[in-house]
This record gives sequence, C-alpha cells and structure tokens, in this order.
Amino acid sequence: MRNQKEVTWSPLFKEAVSRDFESFHECLDQDKRIALHDVAGSKVHAEMLARAGILTAEDNAQIQAGLDKVAEEMRSGAFEWKTELEDVHTNVEDRLIALIGDAGKKLHTARSRNDQVATDIRLYAREQLDLLAGDLKTLIGAFVDLAEKHADAIMPGFTHLQVAQPVTFGHHLMAYVEMFLRDLDRVGAARERLNISPLGAAALAGTGYPIDPEYSASKLGFSTSFANSLDAVSDRDYVVDVCSAGSIIMGHLSRFSEEVILWCTPMFGFIEVGDQFCTGSSIMPQKRNPDLAELVRGKAARVMGNLAFSAALMKSQPLAFNKDQQESKPPLTDTLETVRAAVSVTAQMIPTITVKHARMLAAATQGYSTATDLADYLVRAGVPFRDAHHAVAAIVGAARDKALPTLSELSLAEMQAFAPGLREDVFEVLTVEGSVASRDHKGGTAPRRVRQAIETVRRAIA
Amino acid sequence: MRNQKEVTWSPLFKEAVSRDFESFHECLDQDKRIALHDVAGSKVHAEMLARAGILTAEDNAQIQAGLDKVAEEMRSGAFEWKTELEDVHTNVEDRLIALIGDAGKKLHTARSRNDQVATDIRLYAREQLDLLAGDLKTLIGAFVDLAEKHADAIMPGFTHLQVAQPVTFGHHLMAYVEMFLRDLDRVGAARERLNISPLGAAALAGTGYPIDPEYSASKLGFSTSFANSLDAVSDRDYVVDVCSAGSIIMGHLSRFSEEVILWCTPMFGFIEVGDQFCTGSSIMPQKRNPDLAELVRGKAARVMGNLAFSAALMKSQPLAFNKDQQESKPPLTDTLETVRAAVSVTAQMIPTITVKHARMLAAATQGYSTATDLADYLVRAGVPFRDAHHAVAAIVGAARDKALPTLSELSLAEMQAFAPGLREDVFEVLTVEGSVASRDHKGGTAPRRVRQAIETVRRAIA
Amino acid sequence: MRNQKEVTWSPLFKEAVSRDFESFHECLDQDKRIALHDVAGSKVHAEMLARAGILTAEDNAQIQAGLDKVAEEMRSGAFEWKTELEDVHTNVEDRLIALIGDAGKKLHTARSRNDQVATDIRLYAREQLDLLAGDLKTLIGAFVDLAEKHADAIMPGFTHLQVAQPVTFGHHLMAYVEMFLRDLDRVGAARERLNISPLGAAALAGTGYPIDPEYSASKLGFSTSFANSLDAVSDRDYVVDVCSAGSIIMGHLSRFSEEVILWCTPMFGFIEVGDQFCTGSSIMPQKRNPDLAELVRGKAARVMGNLAFSAALMKSQPLAFNKDQQESKPPLTDTLETVRAAVSVTAQMIPTITVKHARMLAAATQGYSTATDLADYLVRAGVPFRDAHHAVAAIVGAARDKALPTLSELSLAEMQAFAPGLREDVFEVLTVEGSVASRDHKGGTAPRRVRQAIETVRRAIA
Amino acid sequence: MRNQKEVTWSPLFKEAVSRDFESFHECLDQDKRIALHDVAGSKVHAEMLARAGILTAEDNAQIQAGLDKVAEEMRSGAFEWKTELEDVHTNVEDRLIALIGDAGKKLHTARSRNDQVATDIRLYAREQLDLLAGDLKTLIGAFVDLAEKHADAIMPGFTHLQVAQPVTFGHHLMAYVEMFLRDLDRVGAARERLNISPLGAAALAGTGYPIDPEYSASKLGFSTSFANSLDAVSDRDYVVDVCSAGSIIMGHLSRFSEEVILWCTPMFGFIEVGDQFCTGSSIMPQKRNPDLAELVRGKAARVMGNLAFSAALMKSQPLAFNKDQQESKPPLTDTLETVRAAVSVTAQMIPTITVKHARMLAAATQGYSTATDLADYLVRAGVPFRDAHHAVAAIVGAARDKALPTLSELSLAEMQAFAPGLREDVFEVLTVEGSVASRDHKGGTAPRRVRQAIETVRRAIA
Repeated sequence: MRNQKEVTWSPLFKEAVSRDFESFHECLDQDKRIALHDVAGSKVHAEMLARAGILTAEDNAQIQAGLDKVAEEMRSGAFEWKTELEDVHTNVEDRLIALIGDAGKKLHTARSRNDQVATDIRLYAREQLDLLAGDLKTLIGAFVDLAEKHADAIMPGFTHLQVAQPVTFGHHLMAYVEMFLRDLDRVGAARERLNISPLGAAALAGTGYPIDPEYSASKLGFSTSFANSLDAVSDRDYVVDVCSAGSIIMGHLSRFSEEVILWCTPMFGFIEVGDQFCTGSSIMPQKRNPDLAELVRGKAARVMGNLAFSAALMKSQPLAFNKDQQESKPPLTDTLETVRAAVSVTAQMIPTITVKHARMLAAATQGYSTATDLADYLVRAGVPFRDAHHAVAAIVGAARDKALPTLSELSLAEMQAFAPGLREDVFEVLTVEGSVASRDHKGGTAPRRVRQAIETVRRAIA
Repeated sequence: MRNQKEVTWSPLFKEAVSRDFESFHECLDQDKRIALHDVAGSKVHAEMLARAGILTAEDNAQIQAGLDKVAEEMRSGAFEWKTELEDVHTNVEDRLIALIGDAGKKLHTARSRNDQVATDIRLYAREQLDLLAGDLKTLIGAFVDLAEKHADAIMPGFTHLQVAQPVTFGHHLMAYVEMFLRDLDRVGAARERLNISPLGAAALAGTGYPIDPEYSASKLGFSTSFANSLDAVSDRDYVVDVCSAGSIIMGHLSRFSEEVILWCTPMFGFIEVGDQFCTGSSIMPQKRNPDLAELVRGKAARVMGNLAFSAALMKSQPLAFNKDQQESKPPLTDTLETVRAAVSVTAQMIPTITVKHARMLAAATQGYSTATDLADYLVRAGVPFRDAHHAVAAIVGAARDKALPTLSELSLAEMQAFAPGLREDVFEVLTVEGSVASRDHKGGTAPRRVRQAIETVRRAIA
Repeated sequence: MRNQKEVTWSPLFKEAVSRDFESFHECLDQDKRIALHDVAGSKVHAEMLARAGILTAEDNAQIQAGLDKVAEEMRSGAFEWKTELEDVHTNVEDRLIALIGDAGKKLHTARSRNDQVATDIRLYAREQLDLLAGDLKTLIGAFVDLAEKHADAIMPGFTHLQVAQPVTFGHHLMAYVEMFLRDLDRVGAARERLNISPLGAAALAGTGYPIDPEYSASKLGFSTSFANSLDAVSDRDYVVDVCSAGSIIMGHLSRFSEEVILWCTPMFGFIEVGDQFCTGSSIMPQKRNPDLAELVRGKAARVMGNLAFSAALMKSQPLAFNKDQQESKPPLTDTLETVRAAVSVTAQMIPTITVKHARMLAAATQGYSTATDLADYLVRAGVPFRDAHHAVAAIVGAARDKALPTLSELSLAEMQAFAPGLREDVFEVLTVEGSVASRDHKGGTAPRRVRQAIETVRRAIA
Repeated sequence: MRNQKEVTWSPLFKEAVSRDFESFHECLDQDKRIALHDVAGSKVHAEMLARAGILTAEDNAQIQAGLDKVAEEMRSGAFEWKTELEDVHTNVEDRLIALIGDAGKKLHTARSRNDQVATDIRLYAREQLDLLAGDLKTLIGAFVDLAEKHADAIMPGFTHLQVAQPVTFGHHLMAYVEMFLRDLDRVGAARERLNISPLGAAALAGTGYPIDPEYSASKLGFSTSFANSLDAVSDRDYVVDVCSAGSIIMGHLSRFSEEVILWCTPMFGFIEVGDQFCTGSSIMPQKRNPDLAELVRGKAARVMGNLAFSAALMKSQPLAFNKDQQESKPPLTDTLETVRAAVSVTAQMIPTITVKHARMLAAATQGYSTATDLADYLVRAGVPFRDAHHAVAAIVGAARDKALPTLSELSLAEMQAFAPGLREDVFEVLTVEGSVASRDHKGGTAPRRVRQAIETVRRAIA
C-alpha cells in the first residue's frame, strides 16, 4: 500500500514510495520560509473563487477562517509539520481539511501546486528583497556617517595596491556608497521583474474555470498577472536575478572586507575594528583577528556558488515545470539570507571603526604620491604632458637614489636639473594637502566635494 | 635598455620587460574592439580641455584632425598596430604623435589610462547592448510570427516531460516571447546602469585641472558623469550585469533548443528544421542533425562560465584599479558576441521550421491529457476538487488497465462506476479541442487568448 | 564584560561579541558531522603527548576516559551543545574540563584549532569518500546486472539525439559503468591526496614541544604527516578535489537521468520506472512523473555550484589560515551528502526499470539506422569509403522520397541505381540484428562483447 | 545548391548552409592546435587498417606519404586552410585526396569524426599536460632555490593576516612547493585517466570491420583502448579534470600573487620584484606595479570560469555525441594555455625577487609574535595550557597598555605579576630566533628542517 502521498496524487500508484527517495526529495525545512505566504496566497485564491462564483460564500468563509487558524498555529509554533506530506502546500491543505472538512477539499479548485508554489516563492522573494533594500540603506547610512567624520582625513589612494595619489578617507568610503546605490537599483529591478502573479496558470495551461487572475494579482500586491501560463509556472529567471544582484553586493562587501583586513595589519595600521567583530586565538594569546571581514569575504564565494548553481539549473530544461526546479529554492533562500546578514553585520561594524589618522597621513606622504601634481605643474608651465611625465620620472629616480621618502626633500636645483621650468612655488603642489584640495570637481577627492557627495546621497536615500 | 614601453612609463625602469610576460599581458586583439571608441573618447576629451582653456584651440584642432586620421586608418585597415605598445591607448597616442607632433603629447593631460579604458569599454558595451536589444526584437518578431501561424495547432503540454494537458503550439511559443521580453528589460537595465561617464576620474582621485566632466559625459551620450573618482575607475559591475543577462538569455535559448532537439527526433517528430541549420555525418549517410540547437545549448554553458569568471574576478580586490581588471574584458566581449550570434542565428532558424500538425495532435490526445478537465467537470457537478481528483485517477487506471489510449474510449457506464455524477455530455470535455478552448482567460492557451497575446507583444516591441 | 568566548581567547577583549556577528559565524550545526572525529583526533593527540613525555601518563589516562565519555554522550544524544561556544572544538574541550578538571586544560598543549580542525575535516572527508566508493560500487553492480539482462536487447543508438546506428541496451548501460569506474578512480585519488595528517602543525609554524607527528598520523590511519606546517593548516585543495569529482559524478548521473526522462515519455516509451521513484500531480490525476531522475538532474547543478564556490573561496587568500576557510566546510559536506544520496537512490531505482523491448526495437529500425552498414558493404566491394558514403546517401534519399521507413523496403534494383556493386546478400547487412552483431571487437556493441565487458567489470569491482 | 560541406555529408541536403550558422559553428582556429595530432592519428589508423587487411599495402603507402606531406605543409605554414570545410578533419582529408586521389578517400574507412576528434583532443591534452608537468617542475625548482637562499630569514607568519608567530621566508616558500607537488600529482592523474584510445569506436557503436583497436592505441602511446564505444565518443570528463587541476594550480598561484602584491607595498616592504615583471603608469611617474602578480590573480578567475563552463556543458546530455561537445574544446585549450603561461612566467619572476631582510625581521618582532612561546614556557613549568594562555594574554595586555612593541621590553617583575612561575631565562624564549629554532620537527619552521624539506623535494622532482 502506498503511503500518505496518495492523498495528493492518485490510486494509480501501487508501490509505496521509496523511503530514501522520500528523504532525497523532501524540502519541508526549506519550505517553511514560504508557509505563511502559502496561506496568504490561498486566502486570496479562495476569495477570487468566491467572487467568480466558483466557490460558495459559505465555503469561502470556512476556508478563510480555517486558513487564519492555520496561520495562527504556524506563528505560535503549534502547527504540526508532517514530513510524509512532502511539502508545505500539502501540509496546509491537509491541516485545513482536518479543521473544516469538505470545504477544505475545494480550495485546490482551479489551481495547481505549480502556480501555487510559483506564487509563494515570488511573495517570499519580494518580501526579502524589500528587507534587503532596507538593509542596504542602513549600510549606506553607516558609510556616509563615517565618511563625513573623516572627510578631511588624508590617506594614500592606491592603484595596483601601490601608493598612487593622496585621497581622503571620506572619499574612499564614498566609493563604496556608489556601489551600494547601484546595488539598491539592482535589488529594485529584480523586485519589479518578479512582481507578477502566476496564480491562475494552474498546472501549465490555465484553467477552464472563469477565474479572474488580475484580481488575485492585485490583492497580493503584484503589479499584474501572468501573460502566458506556461511561462508563469516555469519561469525561475528571478532566482538568477537575485543571485546575480547578491553576488555583486557580496563582491562589493568582499572588496571592502579585503581593505579592512589590510588596514588592520600592523604594517598598514590604518584602523581598528571593535572587539565585537573580532576574534582571538585558541593558542596565540596576543591575536585579535578581523574575523567578520574575513567571513564576509568567504561568504561572497558562497553566493557566487549559488549564482553558478541557479544558472546551470535552468539550462536546457524543456517547458514547462520540471522537478529540477525544486532545487531553485536553496540558492534563492541561501543567497537572500546570506546577503542580508552580511550587509547588516557589516553595517553594525562600521561605527566601531577607529581611524588612525597619523598612520594614514604618513603612508600618504610616502611613495612620491604627488608626482602627478608635479607633472601637472610642468604642463601648466607649458611642457607637453608626455614630456612632463618623463621629467618627473627622472626626478623621482633622483629622490629614490638618495633614499629620500618624499619629493619635497629634494632641493629646487636638484629638480631643475631635470625640469628647468620649476620655480620656488613648486613646493606648494608637493604637499598631500594641496594635492587633495586641488581635485575640486564633481566626483573628485577634495573635501568639499566629498561633503557635497554625502549630501547628495543623504537626500537620495532619505 | 628597456623597450618601447618606457615611452609610456618612465626611465625608472632599467630592465627590459620579459618577453613572456609581455605576451602574457598583451591584449591588443581583445582591445581592437574598442579602438574606435577610444578615438571618439579622445576627441571629446580634447574638446573639453580646449573649452576649459587647458588646451589651446590650435592644439585641439590639430588633435581633432589627427584623431580623425587615426580613425580613418583604422576603418580602412591601414592602421599599423604595434604589439610592443601593449594596448590600444598607447597605439593611438603613439600614432597621433607621429602624425601631429607635440600637440599629440598634450592629449593625455588631465586623464589617465584608467578613466580612459573605463570610458572605452562602457561605450563598447553600450553599443553592443543596443545591438543586442535589436537582435532580441528580431527574435521576438520571428517567434510571434510563427506563433500566429500555429495559434490553433494543438500539441501536448508537458510537465516533467510527461503529457500533462493539451496546449496550442502558438501558446507554447509565446511562453518564450515572455522570456525574451524580460531579457529585453534586463538588457535595458544593464545599459542604463553602465551609462555613466568615468572620464575625468583620471588615475583614481580626479585631477587638479579645471575639467568639466559633465560636458564630456553629455557629448559621449552618457546620462551623467561619475559621482566618485575611485569608483569610476574600479567599477566593473556592468560586466557581471551583462554576463548575468547573457546567461539568462542563453538559458532561455537553451530551453528552446532542447525542445527543438526533442521535437526533431523520430520519436516526437513534431517539427523539421531547415537544411540551412542542420548538419550531416561523416560516416552515417542518413543523418540530419539539428546542429544549431545543440550548439546554442553548448554556448549557454560558455556564457555561464563567463558569468562565474566575472563574479570571481572582482571578489576581494582592494580599491581602486588593479591589473586583474584587464581580465574583465574577455568575459564581457565573449558574452556579448556569443549571445548576439546565438540570438540572431536562432531568429533566422525560426522561419525554416516546418510543423507536423498531425503528429503533434496525435501526441496531445495520448497520455489522458484531458483528465484534469474531467475532474473539473465533476467539481462543477458539486464534487469537492480533492475527491474529484481521486475519482478521475481511478478512471484513468481503468483506461490504462484496458490499454485504451484516451479516456473517451471508455463507456459512460465504465466511468460512472467511479464517478456517478457523470452524464453523456462528459465526452465534450474529453476532447483536446474543448480542453484548449476552455482555458479562456488572460494568459491561457485558448487560441483567441494566444492571438490577443500576440497583438499585445507586437504593440509592445513596435 | 565579554561573554563565554573569552574562555578560548583572552582577557584582551573588552567588548562582548556582537550577537548578530555571533550568529553569522556560528557553524555548530555544520560541525556536528566532525564531532566524533574531533574526539578521536584528541585521543590520539593526548596519547602522542604522553609518549613524548609532554603529558603525564595519569593526565593522559584521565583525558582518554574523559573523551570516551564525551563520545558516549554524543552517540547517545546526551551531549549538550552550547551555541555560545562557537564551534565543536571548544564544546568538546569545555565539556572535558567539566568532566575531568585540570587535566582537561592540558589537552590543547602543542596544537591549535587550526591543525585540529584540519585533521577533523580530513578524517570526515576520508570516511565519506570511502562510503561513496562503496555506493559507487553498488551503483555499478546495479547497472551491470541490468545490462546483463538486456545484453541482446536492440535499441537505437543516438548521436545528436537522432537515430544513428543500432546498439544493445546492455551496451548503452555499460557506457555509464565506464563513467562510474572513472569516478571510482577519482574518488580514490582524492582520498589518497588528502590522507595526510596536519596534526602538529599547530597554529601555522609547528610547535616547540618535542612532538611526534608521524605517530599521530599513523594512529589516525593517515599515510604520512605534513611536510610543511603553513601548508598543513591552510590547504583546502581537497575540497575542490571532492567537489570536482562530485560534479563529474553528478554530471554522469544527470546524463543518465536525462535519458530516463526521455525514455519514459509516451513518445519514446522505452522504459517504465517503478512507482517507488515516481510522483503524481496535485491536479492532473493521470500523471506519473519520473521525479527522481529530474531531481538528480537538478542536484547536479547544486554540486556544480559547490564546485564554483570552493574554487572561488580559496582564490587570492594569503597564507596561512584565514577565517574564509570556515566556508570550505559547507561545499564539502553538501557535496558529499548530495552525491552519496543521488548515487544510492539511483542504484535503488535501477532494478525497478521495466524495459519495453518492442518499442526499442521498432525505434532502432527506423531512421535508416543501418545506412553505415550499407556503406561498409560497398567498401568491402571495393568502393572508396567517401564514394560509398555518397552513394548510400542517395539511396537513403530515395527511401525518404518514397516514405519507406527502412532501407530494406527498397528493391535491389532501386539501390543498384546508385550503387551498381550491390548484390542480393545486401539485405543481410540491412538488419539491425546483423548490424549489432557485426560490431564484434573490444568495446563494440555486439552482445558477446557486452557480456565480456560485464565480466571484466565484475572482476574489477569484486 | 549546397556548398562544399556536402562533400562530407550527403546529397540529402538541398539548401545551402546559412552563412551566419556557418560562422557560428566554425572552429577552425580553435582546431589548428590539434592538426598535427590529427595527421598522426590518421597515419596510425591507416597502418592498422593495412595490417588488418582492410586497406592494401599500396593504399597505405600512399596515405602515409600523403599525410607526411600534409604535416610538412602544416609545419612550414604552406597548408591552405579552407574555412568552408568547417573543421580540421575535413581539411586534412580534402587535402589528402587532392594529393593522392582515390586512396585518400579510403582513409575514413572504419572510423568517424566522432572517434577521430576524441583521439586528437586526447593526444593534444596529453602533450600539454606533459609540458605542464615540466613547467611545474621548473616552478618548484625556482621556489626551492629561493627558499634555500632564505632558509634562515625570519619573517612574520600570519593567520588572519595578523602577525601570529615568526617563521622563516624559506619555510613560507616551501608551503607553496607542497601545493605544487600536489598539483603535479593532479596533472599526472588527469593524464593517466585520459590516456585511453577512442580510435575504433567509430560514430558510436564500433565498426563491422575487423579492426584492432589495441594496435592503434599502442602505436599512439595510449595505455589501452576504449572499453565501450558509446563512452569513448562522448566522454569529456577529462576536460573537467583538466579545468579542475588548472583551477587549483591557479588558486595556488593567486595566493602567492596576493602575497607578492602585499609584500611589494610600501607598508610591508618585504620584497621587490624585478623590473621585467612590473609596469609603470601612464600618468603617475613614480609608479612601479607588480603587474604580473595581479594578472595571474585575474587569470585564476578565468580558469575558474572555464571550470564552471566545462561542468555545466556536459550536464544532462543524452548519449552519445552531441554538438554541444564542440564547446568542450575552448575551456580545455584556454585552461592549458593560460595555466602553462602563468606557471612559466611566475617561475621566471621568482629569481628576480629581492628580499628586504631587515623589514621582514622588524615586522616579525612586532605584534607580540612570541606570546605562544611564553605560554609554552609556562606549560613546561607545570601550568595547564589553558591557564597559561590566559596569563600570557594578560601580559600582552600590559605590554599593549604601555605601548611596548615587544614582550621582552617588559621587566621580569611585570610579567611575574600575571605568571609567578616565570624566571630570568624567559627572555630567551621571547626572541624570534629562539622561537623559530624551537619548531624543530618534521614540517616545522626551524631552518634545519626547512633545509631537510628542500633536499627531500629536490630528490623527488629530480
């Protein structure tokens, strides 16, 4: 005799399902996340059926009450999950029938698990993306606050991790804010694209009942209902969209985490991160590790794995629904939960950062970071840029040969040997403060521009 | 003595660059795609410099003429590429100086290769995305035309690749159109997000010259200029965006290709694809293989590899530009070129498809594909859906036991044994034509709904 | 005041750890898999310390007894896991100290969590790989048995999913056996490569105590001890090795699953899979879906995601241990558990397969599958292969034009019009039985060769 | 009229192949790599046919001479590639027939392009893997030489990129040698696994000719011939094997590259890399970027993309050959070429590294790197490790509060306040030299152990 699953399927099945297969395809733990969305979707579905005259008002009333009870049981933890019922949908229907009897058996009219699960997951994803958008705004707020605090703090700007030109720490932080703003846009675009109701597509072809898919869509907050039933039950594009947005977000956080890790080394010594986000060692008593930043970097790889998973999953599947699609849920939920946690915990870490200005400034003056300013001085004196670049390289060579840490320790005469056009005022452009202040255009590192950028962002996310 | 590269860099380098390293980091072939964009960007940069008084009008005039000449040489094939000059930017500048002398040496004022290459790639990607959007519209047009031709043609609708319910071939094709419309949206969103000018960010910090980044942005068709110089030179988000959109597009094409391959087997025998897109065998003279569809399926994996590549590439890179980013170009260009070709060739294949209606129809009547309609009949007769589902399963079992291919070959009495509520008119709902016609709501498979969907799409992409 | 973690770390930490960060980096559920391996490793470590005179015999005796008690508690479920203790190692040590007092505080002498966790994971992975090897042998056994049963059963061999040449079902199944044999080799190689003990590497540099790493290695069944302490604590190559072997195994299973799905369609109708591994529909009462095969296909994408995850994770990490490496555990354990389940459940499904020989045979005779044999006949009659290939193509064309399903329905004269060298005996080579029997060399599809291959495999895995 | 391709296929094709499709599936540039292997395989195939009496001795002699001529033309560059002939196999056969006439048409007897291309790629991959093994040995040699030179040089050992314990630079380098030795094993295992001849499997089923597959296998240096013809033509496992081994190798190189980049920053200042492997800036005259290391890091992502590509490609393909498999060549060739170049160029860079011992030593003494040694001192004095760990943490706190850079600057009394068991000899264990020398067991960082490890490796790769 077949086990409980025949409740859902049919008496055609003579053999009991294999226990190992059962545990292989069970996804209840995964699905609990969508349980309340399932109930919400069912409530709207029953309401639509009643409005269309497919259910009686009485049946609908019983179903609404029964589903409210189910939701209550779930919220309170009283709901008894039955693993042998395979998924959340069957658990809800089974419980509903137990609570209200025959009316419960009418709920599944004019729908299928295919459109039902598609609806549930979209509701879940939409909710999580909205929460993620909030998390991102909190993160942006934390960065902006720290940037404002250090809008004048000079640090070395790097390319190739070599000291390039001085920038401000505020400007550096605001680069990440730009990334997160794009992420916010991505999250919003993914949300819009998935916010279409599949309810009414039934198994794959739509249904013969006189349903009103737009009503269901509107009551569930979707922007519209499906345009093609086959697509509605088999589309999982949004899983890739979410994993892609998630990978880019984690990519940004991993870049920042990499910098936090570097800045916390004794060699850089630019910042300290609060104890709350560090760990020690089981053996080395002196250790203080920027653990959170490392873990975020590791979790970035995790989300990138989810991205590869979700893309490969859908490749070459014929229409419409195939069981493979059950596996679209793990990368979706793991991505949303991992990214939200990483964003939130990073946002909490930001205010605990202590900046060591003296170390930053000292590093910025090393490495001949104002050589470009010197070349630009020569250009203003009429030397073509390409020639100025060469002359300054020679000056840098001279300072390096004499082991001088900065160009301003050369005498004017020593510099004039390579660039006769230099005058006494050259020493002004050689300071890191002067260099930073001179980048005074939109997007530049001059402190007043950084403060402008901060204001612009604050208005944008307000 | 160092080789030609010292032209760009500096006399600080004493040792010649390693030849093997040179060939390892050479990317000229890759870069030729952006050569004309590089010239276009340089022309606008010079113009901006002149307007800002950083270049004289005369220098600018010479540069404009010189760059026009360079572009002309490129278009005619006369341009002589020098591998030892490493990249396209240096090749252009080198040639410009050769053509116009000292004025050419002034072009690189107030910019760096970092903002220059970022500008070039964005111009290239924007152009290609616009072309891809056009390709997608052509593809949608081809699908819509074929769908209209076969809006009434009945075929089996599948779930789990088992016959589920009858649908029309037109409806099936329109499912793909929905996917491609989402793709169009994705391509557009990626385009908007990348359409921001990095010109003026210079190496990483902006520049001390009184530049006008908004002017450059506007002349190059960008929606605005960068908000943060560090982000401007190090952002490669758009590569992941493009690879993600490309992977989803290829995922859609791979699903359709899988179906083309199945439909071309003698077992399905639903369609034939034109000779122009098939190949034969070197040994089996009878073979006629749907080669294009298979290759598209294979190329989907390729683009998914590019996606994994682009995401992993940017992980954990500290700000700002690092040489790793040179490797962001291959996944970008390979994705755009592969996807555009796959979309175009598939669009060309569509009109060569011959549909074998009789085979499709015969397959649709097998597999008890109207069992759901029978259950719905019972529901309308007052049986709760869950009970109706069970009664029909028993009827299907009876037909299967008697090896009857369709339910309508059972007698009314035989069916009534399981479902007493059935009447003579039940045979009407058991036809595939009736089943299809009954799914008559927005998004359903009824032919008139398919025709409505076709009209809606035609208006949308007009 | 800092929470419990200071037990492990140090009083240097003044602030309590962030609760959100704590839950972000907690991995206890993940780690329970290695708990007993952790105890086993600790027992050997204490024994080695005692032998080296670093612990007294008495301390060691107490530790051995205490750890046995810990293991017993774990096996019985009595062990009380403390989430605030972060990981399994600290939980074990904490419980040990509670059980035996001061001697327990000496266990961590001359080791670190870095070498400890590396040891534990290797023990876990080795055990799972051994179990997976057993699972693969069971799977091979199931395939071989089915192949033997159908060693003579003729089916169409496909290339490009077009009928190519007849083969036997037994031969087709044995192709998968070859894949699984390579998988067995891969699993074995991964096992050998990881079977090296890291115990004694301590945090990263080794230890100043007079330890005997080879003793620990030998007692734990490792082939040798680490050759470099920095590598020992930071090597996670084996995670990629396992994910790669797992991806290839799942790739093989996904290919077979794809075929099972095709073969179960009414269009192919080659096989039926037992009820135990199929599911029905919540709405379509007639459905019987090869669910297991679809799910295996989906899980293949999952493991491929793990592969991308594990490779990206280790990219660009400086030596030695970084917290990122905590994330090496999820892809490892998920891969091993997913692959083992997929292999086992598939092995269980194989004996439930019913083969419909008549359908297979009928399909094999279609599609002019013996055209190659006809060309070979001509070659034996002296026609160069390339010319023979063309003549036969023309004959196929004639049959197709007359809508004849097989070449043998053409008359000799009709064939001779294109190939004058044909004689009456040509009809013998046109049968699928003759075609199959003629491929009578090692690796060919002739039934006696298939039986030989079966014997060879049976001996190999005995 | 169909174009040239009908030469290969058949007159069944009436329509000319689409030009766009032609360029979509053309792979000649890709295939040129296997051209000489194709000729070599054909020579052995013809020889086998002659030995088996399928070809006359005379035909064979003509074919051998003709193929030698083809190979000669290829080597000299005289061979005229015809794009319209699609692939390398058809180009070779076409040229052969042009050279020797009818005998050339007999070469394709008893084989197919399916087993032919499978043979060619395996020969190519085997050759490249052998070359890669040589490259890896060269790389190991370079590391070992540098390690020997700096076997006593003390540097900080890091975990979490925080200073952990002192190690020697030689020991650090030897960690990479261990990785590369495992890579060598992986490359060897991949080679063995793929070194099986598919020649004779023909299209998919074997052939009716009395061939001798073992003869062909042996003459081509394969360890044996295929055991199953279907598997022989459709197995592409080795592509994943190669991409996986390649990803791990690049992972190792990326870790080392990351360290090179860090060590070259002015903040670390541990090493300098030769000019030959650095680049400068187009705008910042002082820049000297460790470009090679960055590019290797970027190329690691590229190879990881190939890995995802190759795994996804084979997923869910039914047996046997499908056109998708043409796409297995790009990830294989790109991986082999990228990895070989990265290994070689890195090996060339190693001897140009200049080590700044004073900077390394100074960094090693910072960060209280001998705190573990102090704890171990206490353990030897009878304090349980866990208690000793806490006492030392308190001592570290005292030093930190007084801003003392090293523990040895505390007085004995100050330390005894936390650990009464300390004696005057404690200052000996607080030196980094003492710490390093004490890790004197196999795999430890003591210089004599590093030298032993060097000897062991030198013997192993000799």
